[in-house]
Amino acid sequence: MEKLRRKPERGRSERADLYDILDATNVGVLATVKDGEPWTVPLLYGRVDDMLVLHGSTGAGALRHVAQGAKASFCVHLMDGVVVADNLFNSSANYRSVVVRGTLTELPKDTAYDALAVMSDGIIPGRSKEVVTATPKEMAATLAIGLAIEDDNWIAKVRTGGPGEPSEDATAWTGVVPAYTVYGEPEPSEFVPAGTAVPASVRALVERGRTLGV
Amino acid sequence: MEKLRRKPERGRSERADLYDILDATNVGVLATVKDGEPWTVPLLYGRVDDMLVLHGSTGAGALRHVAQGAKASFCVHLMDGVVVADNLFNSSANYRSVVVRGTLTELPKDTAYDALAVMSDGIIPGRSKEVVTATPKEMAATLAIGLAIEDDNWIAKVRTGGPGEPSEDATAWTGVVPAYTVYGEPEPSEFVPAGTAVPASVRALVERGRTLGV
Repeated sequence: MEKLRRKPERGRSERADLYDILDATNVGVLATVKDGEPWTVPLLYGRVDDMLVLHGSTGAGALRHVAQGAKASFCVHLMDGVVVADNLFNSSANYRSVVVRGTLTELPKDTAYDALAVMSDGIIPGRSKEVVTATPKEMAATLAIGLAIEDDNWIAKVRTGGPGEPSEDATAWTGVVPAYTVYGEPEPSEFVPAGTAVPASVRALVERGRTLGV
Repeated sequence: MEKLRRKPERGRSERADLYDILDATNVGVLATVKDGEPWTVPLLYGRVDDMLVLHGSTGAGALRHVAQGAKASFCVHLMDGVVVADNLFNSSANYRSVVVRGTLTELPKDTAYDALAVMSDGIIPGRSKEVVTATPKEMAATLAIGLAIEDDNWIAKVRTGGPGEPSEDATAWTGVVPAYTVYGEPEPSEFVPAGTAVPASVRALVERGRTLGV
């Protein structure tokens, strides 16, 4: 096996690198300020070109708050591996992360469903074409908010490679334990008649194997 | 296969449930307020009884900011599966999440290394007993900050089970695609002499298989 070389953590300045990270997962943490205090919630998201799209019910009070022009910070992270050094101080993790800052805006009602479809296809590619269309009542209750990715409102960071040089005992094992997220066998709900085929999009998701974060 | 029943999302009020979620992963997002704006960063963490411990270098400016009494919100999430409904509106995700809010405090220097050991053992159980001790210089550069888990400063949420009843077409397949994080084969660094054994703690981590989030 080829041995891992040390590659220190570094920021990425190319938009393609930013998009690669954003497209590799689908949950992030939205932070905003309410009454002067920080406030966080994990949310599913999708990317439509240079726009991050978050989705929620119109009943969600905090989401309405950020939809109405509050400053927000959205943070995405992927854990790619545990970096094992010969001491704790130099042990670390390989990861990819993105922070996008800005002001969120509610997307027009007539584009909210399209945003939901993009988000859904980011999770299960092709799924939006297999499903029944939402009812007018459901579409009215759909809140989609957008966060524009501009030239200077994001930070992308990546750490890859092994640990630094051992501090004392050069004979100790050091290296990396890679981490992956995988999907298991689809489990049918209580409403599925016996013998109903798993949709093509869901089968493809599972067959792709090591999917999330890769 | 037993069919999944719908179990709606709900908050958890038991501290044991909170600890189960916190102990199932080791990265969260720290949010704070700087100059009136929200600010986020992903961080490794560990739990010591009723204290969340974050670790960083004393060079990290933002971490010093929260260490000096700033209000913070720390958010942890685990994606457990994709919930496939027959329309996009009812599609969802099974997840576990925790938000802990409060004021962070810098841990005394003489306990920072112990906090680092707890964090490390949360990632690789038993690792702290295998390594060389940090040098005085390294220990001086170690910043450990704590966030106390009190009776009323946290929210834990869990969604499990399948989607709700199909809206129209009761013959469509609906269900859940479970997601897991797994570890791959350890990769030695460039500094490891040929034939060096992988440490017992690292072997155990990989052999445990579906580890993170389970």
